[in-house]
Amino acid sequence: MTDKTIGNAFLQSALADQAAFMSLPQFLQWMEEKKQATCHRITPIAFADMKQWHFHPQTGNLEHQTGKFFSIEGVHIRTNWDTVKEWSQPIINQPEIGFLGIIAKSFGGVLHFLMQAKIEPGNINGVQLSPTLQATRSNYTQVHQGNAPHYLEYFMGRVPGVKVLLDQLQSEQGARFFRKRNRNIIVEVAGDIPVLEDFCWLTLAQIKQLLSFDNVVNMDTRTVISGITFRNGNGLVVPGNSGRPEVFGLSMLASELDEEHALHTIEEVISWITRHKSLAELEVERVPLSRVQHWVRDSHAIYHEDHKYFSVIAVQVEIGNREVRNWTQPLVQSAQEGIMGFIVKNINGVYHFLVQAKMEAGNLDIIELAPTVQCLTGNYRKGLNEYEVPFLDYFLHPEQHQTQVLLSTMQSEEGGRFYREQNRNMIVEVGEAFSPEVPEKYIWMTLHQIKTFIRFNNYLNIQARSLLSAIRFVS
Amino acid sequence: MTDKTIGNAFLQSALADQAAFMSLPQFLQWMEEKKQATCHRITPIAFADMKQWHFHPQTGNLEHQTGKFFSIEGVHIRTNWDTVKEWSQPIINQPEIGFLGIIAKSFGGVLHFLMQAKIEPGNINGVQLSPTLQATRSNYTQVHQGNAPHYLEYFMGRVPGVKVLLDQLQSEQGARFFRKRNRNIIVEVAGDIPVLEDFCWLTLAQIKQLLSFDNVVNMDTRTVISGITFRNGNGLVVPGNSGRPEVFGLSMLASELDEEHALHTIEEVISWITRHKSLAELEVERVPLSRVQHWVRDSHAIYHEDHKYFSVIAVQVEIGNREVRNWTQPLVQSAQEGIMGFIVKNINGVYHFLVQAKMEAGNLDIIELAPTVQCLTGNYRKGLNEYEVPFLDYFLHPEQHQTQVLLSTMQSEEGGRFYREQNRNMIVEVGEAFSPEVPEKYIWMTLHQIKTFIRFNNYLNIQARSLLSAIRFVS
Repeated sequence: MTDKTIGNAFLQSALADQAAFMSLPQFLQWMEEKKQATCHRITPIAFADMKQWHFHPQTGNLEHQTGKFFSIEGVHIRTNWDTVKEWSQPIINQPEIGFLGIIAKSFGGVLHFLMQAKIEPGNINGVQLSPTLQATRSNYTQVHQGNAPHYLEYFMGRVPGVKVLLDQLQSEQGARFFRKRNRNIIVEVAGDIPVLEDFCWLTLAQIKQLLSFDNVVNMDTRTVISGITFRNGNGLVVPGNSGRPEVFGLSMLASELDEEHALHTIEEVISWITRHKSLAELEVERVPLSRVQHWVRDSHAIYHEDHKYFSVIAVQVEIGNREVRNWTQPLVQSAQEGIMGFIVKNINGVYHFLVQAKMEAGNLDIIELAPTVQCLTGNYRKGLNEYEVPFLDYFLHPEQHQTQVLLSTMQSEEGGRFYREQNRNMIVEVGEAFSPEVPEKYIWMTLHQIKTFIRFNNYLNIQARSLLSAIRFVS
Repeated sequence: MTDKTIGNAFLQSALADQAAFMSLPQFLQWMEEKKQATCHRITPIAFADMKQWHFHPQTGNLEHQTGKFFSIEGVHIRTNWDTVKEWSQPIINQPEIGFLGIIAKSFGGVLHFLMQAKIEPGNINGVQLSPTLQATRSNYTQVHQGNAPHYLEYFMGRVPGVKVLLDQLQSEQGARFFRKRNRNIIVEVAGDIPVLEDFCWLTLAQIKQLLSFDNVVNMDTRTVISGITFRNGNGLVVPGNSGRPEVFGLSMLASELDEEHALHTIEEVISWITRHKSLAELEVERVPLSRVQHWVRDSHAIYHEDHKYFSVIAVQVEIGNREVRNWTQPLVQSAQEGIMGFIVKNINGVYHFLVQAKMEAGNLDIIELAPTVQCLTGNYRKGLNEYEVPFLDYFLHPEQHQTQVLLSTMQSEEGGRFYREQNRNMIVEVGEAFSPEVPEKYIWMTLHQIKTFIRFNNYLNIQARSLLSAIRFVS
């Protein structure tokens, strides 16, 4: 298969509101039944009551006794990037690349995705829609002596006739994880495949429809589908630069498929990234957690002395349906809900996204491309700002800026590490009056250009990808 | 300008054997005169006789007293990648991104490049052909109190009418440098520009012709021009998949311009990279130089106890033409000459390059794409092999393998850091009998595909780029 054939198959699935199996209402009922059948009890506990987790006597790092899974350590940052030039903070260290994998199969000529109703301890609502496979390397090398994860063999090259449709390395939250990445992979199977309990087949259009609901589709699903590049292989008519189309979905599709009408060339965008990476000074020193200044550890939490940003807590977990499992683990709890959003604007007849170059402590390569606004770690509400956030008011008060809200939902962060964290995901469209001239850390890109960068690892950050995943082509 | 316009302008320059100014023989004579007029005396000295350089009393790191320029430190490596699972080594740490910049200008409709005859202390032959600008951040922020480098202003956005044609972040030697990168940049000026002494205008075709000579074109020039992506904008007839063309140069051009006839899709190559990065374990710990095991420091050198790999020495430098400058600095001296080379093969009527996934201690992102064979740090000669190097014999004894040598020259490493280091650069073409099936750490790519990856930072390593720079389109 060529990249074009694959891109076209994905596009057909993204346009297929009618699925071979469940309709959307049927799915929602199925999901509700899964929730009802599920036990999900998370209890904050003292660190001292955790099993197999301890603070290292010298470093103060919070670690599992096997040395596996993840640990909470510290980093000290010096930079010339922003107003804050130096800080230290706790960070999650998980130096292994896990699988986020989806199995796809064609039914009636349309790709369907094998999705899972999955409980994670930190989920605000218990069960969310997950990829076929979420496996840390500890999972698939069996560190915890459990059984191998379901469907793992399809991703390990052990099943004949499996074709790889997408296989990308993508970053996680740079403000929380130290250079963490996952392998985002979609494989297509041709033969019969068992559908286990808690799994179901959905089209890409259905998954994208579910992204208009709060907290249904989990972060791992969102990052995998965000990497899909669509191609127009069947003569689909797409509005080009002949004036602004009426329909938001078709405009988005035009921005995805149009290679020609971008404000900047790809080389110009690369030059903009090169310049910022060249001029940015970023010194990242890994330090023991006990040496992280302005952070306090008490019996139940590690937190900033001003109760800002986030804290690390310990929880007792009881989850499952038929079989209830028990364990303890640390989770990261955000100090408040955040907001992330893209401004889009019709330029040359094609939607352009206002992309931000953003530096975060855990980035592998200094900066990544982020949404126009990303306020997750500080309180952005009026009167409490620590610093000015450009463009924020377009999201807080769109009606005052002739700004149309195209998307506004609450979406969850990964429930395996984050405690009930949800953030507002928004895409807003600004009008003619909004200047195409933007500050130097921002640049306009079409969806097609963003997808060009997303294929190469560590360009688009996870918040940008979360927003991109929610874009539907036909509304 | 679109990327296509720029790519076409570069292509015209790469095909322009006739330049507006000097012919090739005239250039060679000009270069010889520059050499004659130049003083170049490099004397190995004791570390104790260096000025402003010292070994840090605690760490043993070799540092400049300002803390700037670069330092020699240590790294300890643990990996599952190759036969050697653990080692420590000295490494050059230079945590700042310098400029390697070329000014281009159109004369008679053909882009010419403003090149410099430049002396570097480590150069085997004193003067080599360099970019318009080589500047470390220390240079352009004036740490050493010298004057600003010539032509710096054209790269700093201070001259109106300057257009950026190429602007990429590219890696240096991963076995010698800790995550070092440079900003490779080509800018086009429209107006008049003074040509200073030691500078001259050459077409890209001329620079590429000079790459068939030993040690004329320096590494910095090679890396900048390697990043150029060519486009076919003027109806140039290029042999496609209609059988193997007679002319090597045209075959290479076909491989560069053909988007269709590659053995693997770009997504397949990305998947291959993703898989290797996901499965590779690489733990890089920065350690004090004094804690690097199996390396010895005496009064004049830091070297491996078996005299393998490389050593760090101190030199007294006297160079200049009218004005002779003096200083002392450390240089890295290789234990022997190395060899690097690509195997190419006609597949589907298009040249494919056999690319290797290579892990080196100083890589930012685990692996980079390397030549088929890269033996720089170990002795590869028969009977002395520490380990088997796949495909090496095709380069050592091409006549025994029905292999045609397309390129074979000696090229220098960067003379600002490396002492008289030259390595054999080869491209060899294998015949029908050579199996397209290759080991898992190797993959076939067309030149067009390689150039797709080269635009995104940290994919192609510097050795691969050095070889790519030498490819001429018409022989």
